[in-house]
Amino acid sequence: MLVMLPGPTNVPERVVRAMLKPVMGHRGPEFRELHERIIENAKYVFQTEGDVFVLTCSGTGGISCALENLLKPGDKAVVAVSGVFGERMAETARRRGAEVVEVPVEWGEAPTPDEVEEVLKDDVKAFCLVYNETSTGAKARDLKVLCELAKDHGALVVVDAVSILGGDELPVDEWGIDVCVTGSQKCLACPPGLALISVSEDAWKTIEENPSRPFYFDLIRAREFWEERHETPFTPAIPLFYALDEALIMIREEGLEARIERHARCARAFYSAVEAMGLEVFPRPEFRSNTVIAVKVPSGVDPRRLREIMKEEYGVLVAGGMGKIRNLVIRIGCMGIISAREVILTLTALGNALNNLGHENDVGAALRAARRELGLARG
Amino acid sequence: MLVMLPGPTNVPERVVRAMLKPVMGHRGPEFRELHERIIENAKYVFQTEGDVFVLTCSGTGGISCALENLLKPGDKAVVAVSGVFGERMAETARRRGAEVVEVPVEWGEAPTPDEVEEVLKDDVKAFCLVYNETSTGAKARDLKVLCELAKDHGALVVVDAVSILGGDELPVDEWGIDVCVTGSQKCLACPPGLALISVSEDAWKTIEENPSRPFYFDLIRAREFWEERHETPFTPAIPLFYALDEALIMIREEGLEARIERHARCARAFYSAVEAMGLEVFPRPEFRSNTVIAVKVPSGVDPRRLREIMKEEYGVLVAGGMGKIRNLVIRIGCMGIISAREVILTLTALGNALNNLGHENDVGAALRAARRELGLARG
Repeated sequence: MLVMLPGPTNVPERVVRAMLKPVMGHRGPEFRELHERIIENAKYVFQTEGDVFVLTCSGTGGISCALENLLKPGDKAVVAVSGVFGERMAETARRRGAEVVEVPVEWGEAPTPDEVEEVLKDDVKAFCLVYNETSTGAKARDLKVLCELAKDHGALVVVDAVSILGGDELPVDEWGIDVCVTGSQKCLACPPGLALISVSEDAWKTIEENPSRPFYFDLIRAREFWEERHETPFTPAIPLFYALDEALIMIREEGLEARIERHARCARAFYSAVEAMGLEVFPRPEFRSNTVIAVKVPSGVDPRRLREIMKEEYGVLVAGGMGKIRNLVIRIGCMGIISAREVILTLTALGNALNNLGHENDVGAALRAARRELGLARG
Repeated sequence: MLVMLPGPTNVPERVVRAMLKPVMGHRGPEFRELHERIIENAKYVFQTEGDVFVLTCSGTGGISCALENLLKPGDKAVVAVSGVFGERMAETARRRGAEVVEVPVEWGEAPTPDEVEEVLKDDVKAFCLVYNETSTGAKARDLKVLCELAKDHGALVVVDAVSILGGDELPVDEWGIDVCVTGSQKCLACPPGLALISVSEDAWKTIEENPSRPFYFDLIRAREFWEERHETPFTPAIPLFYALDEALIMIREEGLEARIERHARCARAFYSAVEAMGLEVFPRPEFRSNTVIAVKVPSGVDPRRLREIMKEEYGVLVAGGMGKIRNLVIRIGCMGIISAREVILTLTALGNALNNLGHENDVGAALRAARRELGLARG
C-alpha cells in the first residue's frame, strides 16, 4: 500500500529496520550518543542554533508542550485560525487559561500581515499560527513577515510546522521563530510517536518566568537533562528514536535544499495534473502547500467511495477532509520520500478511481502534465 | 546484551518484529481493528470492565494525564511518598495547582493503613500512591486495604503501577482503583513510548466536572474518539501499537495468573540468591517487590564500577540507584520475559563482578539458592 496520507506517510525501509536495534537503557552512554546525533541533525533541519528537544508524544502533544510552557493563565495569545489545526492551537491555549484572540481566516487561505496587524497589540504574549494547515492544504507564505510583525509588538512567535518542516523552507532562526513544533511522521519520513520542538532565547526567558509549567512537558526539566547528561527527563520511545536518527541521517545525506526542491517539484506536478484532470485545487495558487495537496471532489462523486476505490483497487491511501470541509476535499500527502514514482501512481489511482465512478477525465493528459513538471521524458 | 533494567526491559523477538508491519493510517478500519484488540486485551491485564486508554507518552506522561484530568487547581490530594516516583506524583499534582499533603514513608518501605488513615480527611479529592516504587524495590502490599480506606473517606484512588502491572497481582476493579497507570516497557515486555490508563465510573464523574482539562491528555476527548470511532484523538505511535498488540497477545497466551507466578518465582530466586551471596536486600521482606529487586552494594564496592563490569565483562545491564539512594543500591528488573535463564545469568554476572572487585562471595551457593526457588535440579 502506498501511504499518501498527509501523515503518517511512507517510511523508508532503512528507517523501519532501524527500529530492530536492541532495546537499551536510556541512562547509559549508548543512548546519549544516539541522542546527541539526533539533536545535532534536528538543529540542521530546523536551521537553528537554539535548543531542540525530542518529545515522546504526537505533534499535538508538541503544541501542548509549547503553549503550556509559554502561557500562564490570564496571558493573552493571538491565534490565527484557518483550519482544524489552528482551532486546536486556540483550544490548547484556552485550556491553559489564556485569553485567546482568534484571527479568523477563510479556510483554504492563510493569515495575511494586514489581518494579523489589526489584532496584534503590545500586550500579547504569543502569536500562534499553523504554517501549513494540514486540514486545508494552505500554507502561510508570508510567515517571515508575520514573524517580524509579531516581534514589533513584543510577542513571541509559536509555529505549528507539523506537516511541513523538512519539506519546505523554514529557517527558524533567520525568520525569528521562537518555538517551532513538528512531528516525526510527516516530512521527516519517520513513523509517528515523536514531536520535535525548538526554543529560542526569548522563549526561554518567558518559560523561566512561568511558575506553573506542566510536569511531563516541562521544558526547563528537558533542558536540565539535556545540559547535564544529554538525556531525556523521562523514558523515551527508544525504537522511534532509532528511526528518527536514521531518518535525519537520510535528510543530511540528501541535503535540506535538495529535499525542499524535491517536495516543491512533486507538488507542482500534483497541482498541474489535477487541474489537467479538470479538478479544482482547494486553496488558490498563492496559498498552495508543497506538502499537503487538497483537491475538491467533483460534484456527484462520493468522496468516501473515491478513497475506497483508490485504496482497494489501486493500492493508494489518501485522506478525506477534516472539520467543516470533511466531505468537500481529498488530501494527498506530498511528504518525506515523495518522488516521481509516488506522484505518478497516486495520480493514476485518482484518475482511474474517478473514471470508475463515472467522472470523465483524461488520465493521460494529467500524467503528461505531471511528467512535465517532474522533468521526465514526455511520455 | 541482557537488559535487566527495571524498564525498559528485554522485548521478545515477536514483539520487536511486529514493529516492521507497514505504516497505516490511524483513521481507517485496519487501525480500528488493531486498537479494539489492544483495548480488549489491556482490560484483561488490568482486570477491569472500566475504560482503558493507550496514550503516546511515557509512564510519567500517563501519571500527568491522570492527575491533570482529576484535579483542579485548589483540590486537595494526599500523596504517599516513599521514593522518586512518589515524589514525581506529588510534584505533578502541585504543578497542577492542587494542595498536596504528603504521607512521608521511609524509603524502602511502603505506606501502611495507619500512616494513611492519619492524613486522609473527607475533603480529599484523590489519594495517590505508587504501588511498586521503582526507585526502591518496595511494594505496597496493603494496596487493597488502602483503597478501601480512601473510599471510606470519599477519595478517588490513583495508582502508579508503571513497574508492576502485568507482573504482579493487581485486580483494578476488585480493589476499587479509580485510575491505574502503567507503561509499555516494564512488565508488559514491550518497547517504551506508550502509557496505559484505566478510568472507573467514579473517576469519570470527577473528570466530567473538571472544566480545565489539558488538551493533549484530555480523557473526555479520548473517550469520545473511542466510543464514536474506536480511534485515538491524536496520531498514535503506530509501530508501538503493533508491538503492544503482540505483547498483550503473548500475555493472554501465557495467562495472567501463570505470568504473575513466574515473576514471583523469579523474584524469590533473586532474593534468596543475593542473600546467599551475603548481600543485603534494600527493603525488608514484607515490602519486597516481585518486579524490581533493589540490593545494597557492599561497602567498599563502587556501584558504578560494579555495573560497568557486569555490563562490559558479563553482558548484563542493571540499573543504579535513584535520588537519595543513588550510590547505595543496584536495581534489577524482574519483569516481562523474566525466566530462570535471565535470573541465572544476572546472578552470575553480579557475583563474578563483585569477585572482580575483590568482594568475596560464593557464586555457587547463590546459584544453588536460586535454582531451589526456580524448581530446577540441584546443580
